[in-house]
Amino acid sequence: MGSIADELTSILGPGKVLRDEATLAVYAVDQAPVVDYRLPAAVVLAESIDDVQATVKACAARNVPLVPRGAGTGVSGGAHASDGCIVLGLERMNRILKINADDETAVVEPGVINADLNDAAAAHGLMFAPDPASFRISTIGGNVATNAGGLRCAKYGVTRDSVLALDVVLADGSLLHTGHQTFKGVAGYDLTGLFVGSEGTLGIVVGATVRLKYLPREVHTIAAFYPDFRQAAAGVLAVGKARVQPAIMELLDGGSLAQLDELHGSDLASRGAALLLVQTDGFGAAAEADVVRKVLAAGGAVVTTETSAEAEQLVELRRNSRGVEVDDEYRVGEDVAVPRSRLVDYVAALEALAEVHDVSLKVVAHAGDGNLHPTFWIDRVNDVVDAGALRRLNTALDASIVAALEMGGTITGEHGVGQYKLRWLGLEQPEPLRQLQRRVKDLFDPSGILNPGKAI
Amino acid sequence: MGSIADELTSILGPGKVLRDEATLAVYAVDQAPVVDYRLPAAVVLAESIDDVQATVKACAARNVPLVPRGAGTGVSGGAHASDGCIVLGLERMNRILKINADDETAVVEPGVINADLNDAAAAHGLMFAPDPASFRISTIGGNVATNAGGLRCAKYGVTRDSVLALDVVLADGSLLHTGHQTFKGVAGYDLTGLFVGSEGTLGIVVGATVRLKYLPREVHTIAAFYPDFRQAAAGVLAVGKARVQPAIMELLDGGSLAQLDELHGSDLASRGAALLLVQTDGFGAAAEADVVRKVLAAGGAVVTTETSAEAEQLVELRRNSRGVEVDDEYRVGEDVAVPRSRLVDYVAALEALAEVHDVSLKVVAHAGDGNLHPTFWIDRVNDVVDAGALRRLNTALDASIVAALEMGGTITGEHGVGQYKLRWLGLEQPEPLRQLQRRVKDLFDPSGILNPGKAI
Ligand SMILES: Cc1cc2nc3c(=O)[nH]c(=O)nc-3n(C[C@H](O)[C@H](O)[C@H](O)COP(=O)(O)OP(=O)(O)OC[C@H]3O[C@@H](n4cnc5c(N)ncnc54)[C@H](O)[C@@H]3O)c2cc1C
Ligand SMILES: Cc1cc2nc3c(=O)[nH]c(=O)nc-3n(C[C@H](O)[C@H](O)[C@H](O)COP(=O)(O)OP(=O)(O)OC[C@H]3O[C@@H](n4cnc5c(N)ncnc54)[C@H](O)[C@@H]3O)c2cc1C
Repeated sequence: MGSIADELTSILGPGKVLRDEATLAVYAVDQAPVVDYRLPAAVVLAESIDDVQATVKACAARNVPLVPRGAGTGVSGGAHASDGCIVLGLERMNRILKINADDETAVVEPGVINADLNDAAAAHGLMFAPDPASFRISTIGGNVATNAGGLRCAKYGVTRDSVLALDVVLADGSLLHTGHQTFKGVAGYDLTGLFVGSEGTLGIVVGATVRLKYLPREVHTIAAFYPDFRQAAAGVLAVGKARVQPAIMELLDGGSLAQLDELHGSDLASRGAALLLVQTDGFGAAAEADVVRKVLAAGGAVVTTETSAEAEQLVELRRNSRGVEVDDEYRVGEDVAVPRSRLVDYVAALEALAEVHDVSLKVVAHAGDGNLHPTFWIDRVNDVVDAGALRRLNTALDASIVAALEMGGTITGEHGVGQYKLRWLGLEQPEPLRQLQRRVKDLFDPSGILNPGKAI
Repeated sequence: MGSIADELTSILGPGKVLRDEATLAVYAVDQAPVVDYRLPAAVVLAESIDDVQATVKACAARNVPLVPRGAGTGVSGGAHASDGCIVLGLERMNRILKINADDETAVVEPGVINADLNDAAAAHGLMFAPDPASFRISTIGGNVATNAGGLRCAKYGVTRDSVLALDVVLADGSLLHTGHQTFKGVAGYDLTGLFVGSEGTLGIVVGATVRLKYLPREVHTIAAFYPDFRQAAAGVLAVGKARVQPAIMELLDGGSLAQLDELHGSDLASRGAALLLVQTDGFGAAAEADVVRKVLAAGGAVVTTETSAEAEQLVELRRNSRGVEVDDEYRVGEDVAVPRSRLVDYVAALEALAEVHDVSLKVVAHAGDGNLHPTFWIDRVNDVVDAGALRRLNTALDASIVAALEMGGTITGEHGVGQYKLRWLGLEQPEPLRQLQRRVKDLFDPSGILNPGKAI
């Protein structure tokens, strides 16, 4: 018997199984910190459902672990390779099979890039609502597998809310269709929802029917600069109390503004210590924007008036950033969410932690959802690793997670547990709940070949 | 060893275990057709999570089936008793434990009536979005267990979209907490979503944290009368093509209008052969209503102008009706959903079926979701059962289900499979999918004591 890579090459034919070192290295990791660097035995770039089924069956027969992968933009290590695994890339399965404009649905292969689906939908006045900041580079399959959030999900919901039906290849290589082509449907258990967010550990998503929403005709964007970060966080609550539901409500602190200035030559940091970006949309966009402006100004913000062109540029900047572009530093980043009422407290707690542990802090947040991405960092000095500083970084990080949990929050609002956040999962979920999830995993994947060591 | 009823009485204390015949009869059935009439051994009206756990443990020890029950307004027989079972009523656990106005969440016991939660939320300018027409009489626990829809779910989503966390008593009597208190959260598998819609077969919901949405300040309501039912159905698509998302879009055919006239002395049937009721809400409500009126008039409707007071009355009528109030007839009713683009075709198919099988037809539909409730009926003549007519009724019914499936639809948009729709489930879901669901059921409830013979 040859190697699994040989076998797959002979089953799948030429060009689909890659084993050169450079490729293996590229597909060994996603964009998360690397905890345990491992090389795959081979990378399979499937071109059809048949390819996926054949690959899974071959791996199942030999008990070889499989790591499904979309674009590898994940930031939790969900697509990191495990030793000797097959990385099963879905990026070539990138056809939009149907846009049913009257049904307001689309049927797609898993490798379709989020932005491509949105472009195709826009031609019909429609949109795929989930818009992770990675929308130009991440796949629908990856969005589904992580239950991705994004900027406009406060109003339009997370990925799960837009998924109607899935085609999934199970651990034994069989193909399952779950869900319904209709907006509503309650026949049987919601297995579709169970696959969403399961990070490739229960099955491989090879097709999806998604609901599309209406592209808003009118959009108003407001940039509100604050002298103080906590005041900006309070602005989020004030908009809520005015019972206005913006499409987007992004919060950036002074550190993030300074970083944008550095990258783009802007002068944001000189205009305030924090920025709240609010976008209203739809037929009521103008009226909602009026209320938002009043409320934020009353809360101490300097609010853009007349045109919102500048504010829109800022949203574009935010949309395309993870806030971690600068590489000459050591940093750790997170994805906690807290109940909205605790936003201000949590921001205060973060500032206190940065102070106590003597590390720098920057924060961007999908604030409408209470979902924060704090980054703690220290500058790199002459490329010498300062072990003490690294320890302080990690202490601050762990403490920030604990603080979120103490406020009723979660360790991950949208990025998933992957491999990187497993160390905190036990702080959030007690053993019986974890045990039950392990049993669900066993039910779907008794040999444990699908993305082992991830998500749960 | 005494009977299970004796044992429960001694464990739970006085007043919680009911065994008189009248009570057993009331709790033997919900509002669905009765397929197989059975009496419970006793009815337990739990007052606390402890009561529920004790009841489940006692039943588990003896392998006695348990039928969880909210208000018994279900129309699929999900709460019908099985022989010698314990009906576990949650109606006394009806406290709203918290309204977290700033978090925009509420924590409730399962027996809270939907309308009571909405009243409490309204005091804060908030609402619990799921609004089944039974909202004045059904419980949140029942809404969760059926993943109830309602009038405004085209815009605001079904129950699943409003549930953040659940407390569930499992088949072994243990208490599990799933989900998160935050809007977003992706740690681990979505067990919360799995319990939603599982019709009491995976666990007993004893608490829920739900997300609240903003109560719209402005609401516009439009009544559009059509000379023809299919034209009215086409109106639904026209509103969609205008990319306006109404909160409510209800369709009533001539039969339903005649019935409302009979019940309320109105003259609706004389004004058209079908009625489309559209409600827009929020800051853009007026502008959206303008577009809707134009689009519907262009499609041949007579549209209410100036005030929408009459239209609002009509929505109230619709809200409080299931469209089956008249009892001097034999009737069979359904809950299919079809992709929106097939609405007109499906309505035509229904009309053809009524014609071919010589039965009367009336239809109400949550048309924005493609979710239809057709009723076929025949008049009762001198209380003599006409076996031939009953056969025709059932043939028309079965054919209407098949027609929906052929158009890519589902056998149940919102009511659940319960007991009544099991006979069609195999038409929608192939055996491997059903098998997987049975295995999920086995995992959660190995002895099969939770609501056996329902849902899957
Ligand atoms: C600049 C930047 C901004 C970002 N912004 C956001 C944001 O706003 N919101 C957000 O939620 N995330 C964000 N992310 C994280 C990431 O983009 C999302 O998690 C995205 O959904 C991953 O998609 P992907 O195609 O890259 O999946 P991958 O990274 O390849 O995989 C992610 C996980 O899904 C599994 N998987 C992938 N495809 C499949 C499949 N077809 N079937 C089964 N399992 C599969 C993988 O095994 C892995 O566990 C951002 C990342 C970057 C780099
Ligand atoms: C006039 C009328 C109008 C209606 N309109 C709608 C509508 O617009 N949309 C819609 O979706 N439905 C509608 N229904 C159906 C029904 O009201 C819903 O299904 C509702 O959600 C049931 O709630 P309930 O409290 O009455 O539950 P029940 O009927 O008591 O139970 C329903 C199911 O849930 C289970 N269950 C109940 N409580 C729990 C619990 N705490 N834990 C676990 N399982 C539980 C039961 O075992 C059963 O399987 C309507 C019914 C009527 C009579």
